[in-house]
Amino acid sequence: MADLRFFNCKGPFTASELASIADTKLVGDEKASYKDVAAIDLAGPDDVTFLDNRKYLDAFSKTRAGLCIVHPDLANHAPEGLNLLLTPQPYMAYAKIANLFYEKEPVDSQISSLAHIDPSATIGQGVYIEAGAYIGKNVVVGNDTQILANAVIREGVQIGNSCIISSNVTISHSLIGNAVTIHPGTQIGQDGFGFASGPQGHLRIPQLGRVIIEDHVNIGANTTIDRGAGPDTVIGTGSQIDNLVQIAHNVVIGAGCVLVAQVGISGSTKLGNFCVAGGQAGLAGHLTIGDGVTMAAKSGVMKNIEAGQTVGGFPAIPQKEWLKKQATLNKIIKKTNQKDKHHV
Amino acid sequence: MADLRFFNCKGPFTASELASIADTKLVGDEKASYKDVAAIDLAGPDDVTFLDNRKYLDAFSKTRAGLCIVHPDLANHAPEGLNLLLTPQPYMAYAKIANLFYEKEPVDSQISSLAHIDPSATIGQGVYIEAGAYIGKNVVVGNDTQILANAVIREGVQIGNSCIISSNVTISHSLIGNAVTIHPGTQIGQDGFGFASGPQGHLRIPQLGRVIIEDHVNIGANTTIDRGAGPDTVIGTGSQIDNLVQIAHNVVIGAGCVLVAQVGISGSTKLGNFCVAGGQAGLAGHLTIGDGVTMAAKSGVMKNIEAGQTVGGFPAIPQKEWLKKQATLNKIIKKTNQKDKHHV
Amino acid sequence: MADLRFFNCKGPFTASELASIADTKLVGDEKASYKDVAAIDLAGPDDVTFLDNRKYLDAFSKTRAGLCIVHPDLANHAPEGLNLLLTPQPYMAYAKIANLFYEKEPVDSQISSLAHIDPSATIGQGVYIEAGAYIGKNVVVGNDTQILANAVIREGVQIGNSCIISSNVTISHSLIGNAVTIHPGTQIGQDGFGFASGPQGHLRIPQLGRVIIEDHVNIGANTTIDRGAGPDTVIGTGSQIDNLVQIAHNVVIGAGCVLVAQVGISGSTKLGNFCVAGGQAGLAGHLTIGDGVTMAAKSGVMKNIEAGQTVGGFPAIPQKEWLKKQATLNKIIKKTNQKDKHHV
Repeated sequence: MADLRFFNCKGPFTASELASIADTKLVGDEKASYKDVAAIDLAGPDDVTFLDNRKYLDAFSKTRAGLCIVHPDLANHAPEGLNLLLTPQPYMAYAKIANLFYEKEPVDSQISSLAHIDPSATIGQGVYIEAGAYIGKNVVVGNDTQILANAVIREGVQIGNSCIISSNVTISHSLIGNAVTIHPGTQIGQDGFGFASGPQGHLRIPQLGRVIIEDHVNIGANTTIDRGAGPDTVIGTGSQIDNLVQIAHNVVIGAGCVLVAQVGISGSTKLGNFCVAGGQAGLAGHLTIGDGVTMAAKSGVMKNIEAGQTVGGFPAIPQKEWLKKQATLNKIIKKTNQKDKHHV
Repeated sequence: MADLRFFNCKGPFTASELASIADTKLVGDEKASYKDVAAIDLAGPDDVTFLDNRKYLDAFSKTRAGLCIVHPDLANHAPEGLNLLLTPQPYMAYAKIANLFYEKEPVDSQISSLAHIDPSATIGQGVYIEAGAYIGKNVVVGNDTQILANAVIREGVQIGNSCIISSNVTISHSLIGNAVTIHPGTQIGQDGFGFASGPQGHLRIPQLGRVIIEDHVNIGANTTIDRGAGPDTVIGTGSQIDNLVQIAHNVVIGAGCVLVAQVGISGSTKLGNFCVAGGQAGLAGHLTIGDGVTMAAKSGVMKNIEAGQTVGGFPAIPQKEWLKKQATLNKIIKKTNQKDKHHV
Repeated sequence: MADLRFFNCKGPFTASELASIADTKLVGDEKASYKDVAAIDLAGPDDVTFLDNRKYLDAFSKTRAGLCIVHPDLANHAPEGLNLLLTPQPYMAYAKIANLFYEKEPVDSQISSLAHIDPSATIGQGVYIEAGAYIGKNVVVGNDTQILANAVIREGVQIGNSCIISSNVTISHSLIGNAVTIHPGTQIGQDGFGFASGPQGHLRIPQLGRVIIEDHVNIGANTTIDRGAGPDTVIGTGSQIDNLVQIAHNVVIGAGCVLVAQVGISGSTKLGNFCVAGGQAGLAGHLTIGDGVTMAAKSGVMKNIEAGQTVGGFPAIPQKEWLKKQATLNKIIKKTNQKDKHHV
């Protein structure tokens, strides 16, 4: 059970309520009632759990859970008496159910007297602003948005409805959509790394673009997103960005992309929709990455990549080629070492 | 045109004013007047643009801009009627002109009543301090410097004139020169990662050095610069540091260096003047890197490097060797795979 | 001598006091008195220094220091008249002595009127809280703990005794032990990067775990430590974590580990005790790393590693194999290039 100091469980819910919210087919008693969610090996009779990976089939067959979300093809492995919610997407169904049990508390609208709010700012209804927050001139904050302690929203920034801007975040020169969550310590809209260099040194170029964050984007902690001199830096609808990610000036990220921690994307590179970059991957500047491209962790992407490809290594090449290259290489090395042995 | 919510254009300027400020030779009507700057393909008759890359020669020959900054050698590609500013350094000239059009607003001196300022601090003239800023004991802030919301300047720190210390920055144990800009979320002067290790665990070593940031340095967002136990950590005049860069204890960076995002420099390494490190490059500790060295993105530098070299790969070797090595390797792999095919 | 604006030297101390606190054997005058610590090449007659690396034997034989901490085996290289503190662990002894000379000032208990402290919070004795700090509902702060300017401690978090929580840090959903130091800009306890993905996009999974930081842990600047959906994220006793490190959801770090700057550890990976990860190393998710494993800088760890191993490269393999592989490869390349030359 989750620690009550931090989490508030909204259960119980009946099997039929859960089946309905998660768009699943219930096999079992629709009036049965469940108090919480739990992992498949820890769940008891009052808990809902899920099976999403055949690795856990054995745990599934022994689970003491009351209700389990599972793919129809695997239902026959269920222990006797276990109620089931059948769906081809068990993890998504679990996400919906867990979000029901742990729905975020509605926050009472409140604006701290220890916040600085410029009189020219427009603050929507139901807005919650904590102590130490700074809201600059002409800022617009949409309805039901939360601005947490010590977040800084600079002049002219617009934030949509139902956003959460966490503590120690700074946002400048940006337009933020609806239902955007920004985790603590992330810095958005500062000027990009652009300058002219000459014998007298470097001279910064005015960065006259903006950062546009579309709806339902979720951004991790201590990430940085710069604005650029040219076209706006854009993060597309529903994209998920992890911690400590660097997104440089004029980068455009499509919808539904996933950028894992410590990824770095250089200036003016464009990602299509539903691309994935693994942890610590780095992308050179001015590239075009097609829709649905996957870039492995730690890969170094130096060239454009066509839609649908999976690449890895540095310089990144199609993952299959990279694996074959590694295998061949190992074979050559082994052979050389054996020859050397024979020569001794 | 830049978004008026965020930017304030100071135009128009006449061709002769622009020629003079950018140290260029005007070819055309010196009384012609221009309202804004714009990219070569988007500029109209009221805009100034520039050509800095032969890739855009075609766009140049078709541009609708009123005035274009260009190298004399390429002037003959200009469309009829286009006024020109001739210079061997078009990008630097553009930087000067764009900075004229979008000169930063002078900020009215003002010290927020929501800032904490220790009575022992010395605050210069024309200083601007926002709400939530924290200025500790014996801090010295020079003239015309801006300390933005929720920045923290700890005991004894000295900051020169005309600096911008952005929000959510912390500075301790540091001396900051003039005209230094520090972007949001950057942490400077905390103690370096130094400890003695034994069977009872790790014991931190007091870090008795300082961080010295020289004049005209520009530091990105969420970067970290530690002080060390030994000599001061130093960032040389005019160096440009990007976001999420790690600079460890006792590191010395020369003048005019460029460190791209997510670079990491280990303790006690010294860089000469005008070095460049590409994104995600990593340098081992206690190295000496000569003047004018370029380290490619993602390179892992394990040895000293002599002045003027360009290195890449991991472990980093001269970039030409690395490229030749890759090519030879690919040839060997291809050959082996062909042999294998013939054997089948 | 350290800059008096930042550091306060508590000397002088007598040789016998120093010998005793550092558990060393004094050879020389026990009443001799020393004012400060200094590096071996800079120290004068009033200074204590140390020799920990044979590289500096020459400097040792010429040092002007008054007292030197040294391994008994090297004592015979000492210049005439130098007093010695003999110990098999000179660096650890130096750490103890330097911490004596530069013991941190006890901070007067004080709670700023510019801090936000929820009335339901429990604040221990001797606590110091600066302006702009935010202490949420039901937070518990132990005795003698310091919460610096603009740090944010969210609802329900517990912090032990004698901790330092630096400025611009955010902590949520966490239990923090005693004597924990967290440097500025670090973000702890925000929700991990977990979501279900489907044709309609990504849906976040509630992250119902916590972050547990055990006693004597030291965490650098701008680091991120997430909580997860499953078991608690744990940082074991005495572990040392550098700047800009990413620790994902459900990761467990054993006691006494050392994670150098920009390391990234993916979700659900477990490290044993006294592991070391070099700068920019990356670990995949769901791995088990045994006790005492060393992972070289920039390594990419993709598989479980048994206790005591040293690995490097990407994918990481035992460091010796990696070195041999590189050597063989260089030989093959050289041979191929020579053959090609002969063919010309």
